[in-house]
Amino acid sequence: MQTHTLDELNKAGRQDFVTALGEVFEHAPWVTEAAFARKPFVSLAALHQALGDALRAADAARRLALVKGHPDLAGKAARAGNLTADSNTEQSSAGLDRLTEAEYARFHKLNDAYRARFGFPFIVCVRRHGKESILGEFEKRLKHAPDAELQSALTEIVRIAALRLDQRVTASDKLKVHGRLSTHVLDTHGGRPAEGVELELVELSEGDAARAVTRATTNADGRTDQPLIAGRPVPIARYELRFHIGAYFRARDAAEADPPFLSVVPVRFAVAEPEGHYHVPLLASPWSYTTYRGS
Amino acid sequence: MQTHTLDELNKAGRQDFVTALGEVFEHAPWVTEAAFARKPFVSLAALHQALGDALRAADAARRLALVKGHPDLAGKAARAGNLTADSNTEQSSAGLDRLTEAEYARFHKLNDAYRARFGFPFIVCVRRHGKESILGEFEKRLKHAPDAELQSALTEIVRIAALRLDQRVTASDKLKVHGRLSTHVLDTHGGRPAEGVELELVELSEGDAARAVTRATTNADGRTDQPLIAGRPVPIARYELRFHIGAYFRARDAAEADPPFLSVVPVRFAVAEPEGHYHVPLLASPWSYTTYRGS
Amino acid sequence: MQTHTLDELNKAGRQDFVTALGEVFEHAPWVTEAAFARKPFVSLAALHQALGDALRAADAARRLALVKGHPDLAGKAARAGNLTADSNTEQSSAGLDRLTEAEYARFHKLNDAYRARFGFPFIVCVRRHGKESILGEFEKRLKHAPDAELQSALTEIVRIAALRLDQRVTASDKLKVHGRLSTHVLDTHGGRPAEGVELELVELSEGDAARAVTRATTNADGRTDQPLIAGRPVPIARYELRFHIGAYFRARDAAEADPPFLSVVPVRFAVAEPEGHYHVPLLASPWSYTTYRGS
Amino acid sequence: MQTHTLDELNKAGRQDFVTALGEVFEHAPWVTEAAFARKPFVSLAALHQALGDALRAADAARRLALVKGHPDLAGKAARAGNLTADSNTEQSSAGLDRLTEAEYARFHKLNDAYRARFGFPFIVCVRRHGKESILGEFEKRLKHAPDAELQSALTEIVRIAALRLDQRVTASDKLKVHGRLSTHVLDTHGGRPAEGVELELVELSEGDAARAVTRATTNADGRTDQPLIAGRPVPIARYELRFHIGAYFRARDAAEADPPFLSVVPVRFAVAEPEGHYHVPLLASPWSYTTYRGS
Repeated sequence: MQTHTLDELNKAGRQDFVTALGEVFEHAPWVTEAAFARKPFVSLAALHQALGDALRAADAARRLALVKGHPDLAGKAARAGNLTADSNTEQSSAGLDRLTEAEYARFHKLNDAYRARFGFPFIVCVRRHGKESILGEFEKRLKHAPDAELQSALTEIVRIAALRLDQRVTASDKLKVHGRLSTHVLDTHGGRPAEGVELELVELSEGDAARAVTRATTNADGRTDQPLIAGRPVPIARYELRFHIGAYFRARDAAEADPPFLSVVPVRFAVAEPEGHYHVPLLASPWSYTTYRGS
Repeated sequence: MQTHTLDELNKAGRQDFVTALGEVFEHAPWVTEAAFARKPFVSLAALHQALGDALRAADAARRLALVKGHPDLAGKAARAGNLTADSNTEQSSAGLDRLTEAEYARFHKLNDAYRARFGFPFIVCVRRHGKESILGEFEKRLKHAPDAELQSALTEIVRIAALRLDQRVTASDKLKVHGRLSTHVLDTHGGRPAEGVELELVELSEGDAARAVTRATTNADGRTDQPLIAGRPVPIARYELRFHIGAYFRARDAAEADPPFLSVVPVRFAVAEPEGHYHVPLLASPWSYTTYRGS
Repeated sequence: MQTHTLDELNKAGRQDFVTALGEVFEHAPWVTEAAFARKPFVSLAALHQALGDALRAADAARRLALVKGHPDLAGKAARAGNLTADSNTEQSSAGLDRLTEAEYARFHKLNDAYRARFGFPFIVCVRRHGKESILGEFEKRLKHAPDAELQSALTEIVRIAALRLDQRVTASDKLKVHGRLSTHVLDTHGGRPAEGVELELVELSEGDAARAVTRATTNADGRTDQPLIAGRPVPIARYELRFHIGAYFRARDAAEADPPFLSVVPVRFAVAEPEGHYHVPLLASPWSYTTYRGS
Repeated sequence: MQTHTLDELNKAGRQDFVTALGEVFEHAPWVTEAAFARKPFVSLAALHQALGDALRAADAARRLALVKGHPDLAGKAARAGNLTADSNTEQSSAGLDRLTEAEYARFHKLNDAYRARFGFPFIVCVRRHGKESILGEFEKRLKHAPDAELQSALTEIVRIAALRLDQRVTASDKLKVHGRLSTHVLDTHGGRPAEGVELELVELSEGDAARAVTRATTNADGRTDQPLIAGRPVPIARYELRFHIGAYFRARDAAEADPPFLSVVPVRFAVAEPEGHYHVPLLASPWSYTTYRGS
């Protein structure tokens, strides 16, 4: 995907502007075209605001057509490879391209029920959710009144647009669309950062099935060189961080029992704000530990 | 199983004494008979000592025959229902009566290798071990020199005898054959014991497969009415205690996020001393927790 | 002071009954006499209830006379040694017999202001308070309306009576007049109870001046042989528990820094419910600690 | 004091060089002069090394004269205002200009004993110590053999020189002469950084007398805007950090007891490495807290 500076966009002609941003709204370059008139934009936030305003100012039929232009989640288009590049990447991010047959059937059934009730496809900003959370949203929103649900769909479209803008346009400001998940391991037995602790982050779903997100080893400061998740939303989901502190203490002759009392410490938590900062440290001795939401 | 007081045994004739205690040593009432001469016993510990002395005083052939008289672990006799009642109960306690075909095959192979190497069956006091630990012992002891391994087998036989004695004889003293596993949940958000927290204890094995051990709900003091394990050894194994504190805090309107940051808190630990006291408390707020080996 | 069983009191004649309990109400044996008619008492609680009822049933003049019969707190009678034995012990318990001249002057001034406003002396159940808390009560109650304040005085008199009864009469039930303060030290570096930790409890007052309450050394279970406070109310006050864990870890070669990072750990807390159970444990390594209100 | 860049010093003539750095060694510009020949210096570390080498290369008489040229700690010269500007600032940093008569007498006695034993004044890099630690060093070093003690004095002189250099010369590198003391307050009741917590840092000395070091209020991230100590060594001393979390929780209606269980939380710790980083966080709810040496 080509990125542009805000400055370039402010100097671009209508056609280049629309080409550059057209797919920010799925199959709806008219939104971008309508916002073009508001040039120049002092910030990325102003551009995003203008795009949202253009969408909200459009007549009802056009807005509904935009909603209807979206693909089903984990639907036939996805299976057949007929998604836009953006949709494809987004649906993959939540693992929707690796569903079991049972999960695919469940999505299929929910998609049908949703379309039957509202007459348009279910739209959610999937990059803000894990698979389990998407299913939860699906079931919650199926109970909405039709008007409220159309509003929900538009809210999600504006969120999707923000993330797509964030990827296409660089500016001196940033849209608040990224979260962060980080950790830190302190050795309270030795009174120092715990260096060399292996850890992995998994996303849990129904029945506590685990999908690997990332793995890392702590550095000399007890932190990971990179945050566990950064530069994107932290999907609403249940996670488990697994700290291999047994091996760490054994290497320092600090574990006195065989097998050691603590070996892999699992810390299970849920993320509710995809744009939030989740710092989940571990203070550990061979016989005790403390964890908390830090900052 | 019939229980006797130590006093009754001290007053019993030879035949009654042997009948009462005969099966304390598998298929070897001669050990009990030999100890009979040491009557009376001032304590259960003295009786156990006398039985062990009688075993150690016997000639080598007789000791070997005793060892050989034991059944294979998870072997054909077990499958065919041909175990003594004690052996049957003991092997069940470690889950050896519910093996998968793959596990059964693994035991079969280890049994064969062990018999080929030492000429007698593998004996371990199974009530002191989880399934994973028994397999670990098996592999460790296969590497022993034959003399050392015969000693290991006799040590285990004396441990088995202690647990069987503990079940058959009541006295003013107790053999040190029991451990204890307990917990306690403190609500550091409200500054009180956490009442009504559901929790379960599972034993983990290879691949973190979980076997339910027990479940309980905390009482007004934040404890369980009964220890999680008591009145028996705490098997050497990896465990996970799962505390449902999300539901506890939600019921008190203390969980501010949706989904709550903490829902089920898993505490994973290993037991290395079956006769030890493992107190594993949880100090929890909706956003943090501490656990440790307490007392 | 002579103690009686409830049974003895139930069998006693009027004179013996009044002699036994007369001083439960300061200079007012008539309350005891009035309660005598309600014999027999099924429990200590029933006796306490009957005494309170007798007080409340008396006419206003008599009640006021009872209130007026109390000595000033830390007043001239105390200085001159003219208190009843009960009053003397009670005032000493809060340290009112060891005031500085400045404190004596402050009490004197408050006593005068109180008498000028209400026409009777300030009455508070001093065994439920530390010195600082008594002064706080004094200032708070000086702002009461006269009627409300008379009620406060009577409430305190009934509390004083409960504690005096508790000391004089034994029965199968107990009045809920005692609290408890206890501690427990866990060594999270070694995974065991911390044995041999010296600790002291002090009561803090203005400017954080400290008055020693008790000192103790932890036993093999990491607890003190006796609770720090038991068998009496835990006075409403600010406290500091000082744990000498530096010496404990140095003796175990666990402290790696010189001077050690942690030496004396002060835990400062306040008691608000004199009849409550305050358990204040310490989980400590040489580099970290956790404390909390436990149970 | 005038500061210079390393570049300026490298270009300076002998006289300017000596003028700029002369007082780095007390009353001994000859050390600087001797190092001048090693110009140019690639780094501040190289300059410090050259100065130390020049000192060590000098003959014994000259080195001894340098040692003897230092003033007594808290001695008559200090009282009379006859110290060099550097010495004056340094002695003040440790509070040696605000001694009680008793302390002054103690220093006087130690100075006399030291001179009597070694024939030169006691020299210590006072900016690395609190008052109590200086007295401890004094007593420890009085027991040294004379040769070893002369080495100790020279080591301290090189440390003093490093700190004086650090103040006079800016370069692209930094001498490792600074430590850091910082804190962080997490609200585990609300799951967020604790903003607006007032805290103070005091240095403790004999009898736990407290000397204020600094006070601060936590910002939106739960940290202080500036580290509590930075840009200088963290003196070897015992400290107490006092966190006013009672007021913090009361302002958020989170404190349920009156008085609150926790009001001012004192965290008492010692610093052993003046050039180390001491991070001392507090994780607190109204009923519990955890502290540790972090990073």
